[in-house]
Amino acid sequence: MSENRRTNDPEGVRRRIVDAAYDAFVTQGYLATGMLELRERASVSGGAMAHHFAVKRDLGLAVIRDRVSEAVRQTWIEPFHTGTNAPAAIDSIFESIIGGLTQNGRVSGCPLNNMAMEISQHDAEMRGAVSAVFGAWHEALSDSFETDVKENRARELNPQSLATLVIASYSGAMAMAKARQDVSPLIECRAELAALLAAKYR
Amino acid sequence: MSENRRTNDPEGVRRRIVDAAYDAFVTQGYLATGMLELRERASVSGGAMAHHFAVKRDLGLAVIRDRVSEAVRQTWIEPFHTGTNAPAAIDSIFESIIGGLTQNGRVSGCPLNNMAMEISQHDAEMRGAVSAVFGAWHEALSDSFETDVKENRARELNPQSLATLVIASYSGAMAMAKARQDVSPLIECRAELAALLAAKYR
Repeated sequence: MSENRRTNDPEGVRRRIVDAAYDAFVTQGYLATGMLELRERASVSGGAMAHHFAVKRDLGLAVIRDRVSEAVRQTWIEPFHTGTNAPAAIDSIFESIIGGLTQNGRVSGCPLNNMAMEISQHDAEMRGAVSAVFGAWHEALSDSFETDVKENRARELNPQSLATLVIASYSGAMAMAKARQDVSPLIECRAELAALLAAKYR
Repeated sequence: MSENRRTNDPEGVRRRIVDAAYDAFVTQGYLATGMLELRERASVSGGAMAHHFAVKRDLGLAVIRDRVSEAVRQTWIEPFHTGTNAPAAIDSIFESIIGGLTQNGRVSGCPLNNMAMEISQHDAEMRGAVSAVFGAWHEALSDSFETDVKENRARELNPQSLATLVIASYSGAMAMAKARQDVSPLIECRAELAALLAAKYR
């Protein structure tokens, strides 16, 4: 019966595997997680796992394309569609991430950066999947800065390099916070970014 | 004869192992590297390896404390002792790192951040070793900003949070550069940091 339910719902099985993999890759790392452990976490048979993901790398690609990109969209892209301007959106994103981590009491890091640091320099397809997520994130930020300039809210600024600085400083601060298990690098970066953006806005 | 040389020079053997481990951890990652591979890379016997490093974690700690901290000291701490002010030192550090990567044609990332991202949240001793290196780096930067304020070169600035922003944005830009195998995130961060620091200096 349970075997039937599995074979009759391949999409559900796939989703369960990718959910379990996302959770494991984010909390303990891609390289540190084995396929057997993922089968157990997702409660799927060896046959079902092999049907959907022959090797861990395929699952890594699915996690980046389906889950990591969605996490970045929800956390870092959507707020720019509703915010009044880029600095306000950035500040509220930092506020909600810092609040979440403080409540959680544990810093597992940024899902995208965790995956980015673990993939091999020599795997062009995985690099491409990670780059596409960075690209969408960067575009949301630079578009928002550009709109602010066009609509006369911002003074002179370079939307491209400023977007890179925001993403880089957030990513680096999260890595420091993870290494120290302490949110203060994020709090300090939030303050410095707010001040530097305020100087560029009217 | 060769076996004699090994046993008569335990420091040399240890150094050879740590050198091989540093090289492997930086280029392919800590988790992806096995002890057997390291024995082969360092050309040491199983007995010699076991004598110096019983488990990979001990070798990870030695790499962080001996090699990663030294790399950070040479690249990111020493220039502050000879530079005219903090922004000039930071800009020349970015210049030399970008130049090196461009010449190298390959971005393997920041040794400290690579290790920081790979260590477990639950290993307090490794977290402590990584935090100590981040701490020494942060102190060199914040001391340099403080001196610039005291000697009236800089206007109002917060040495602590500004040091965090510089380290975080460099680390994040290096992670983006590694993921994309492209130095442009570092070039953009260098430009944004130079402009933001110039506004704080006389």
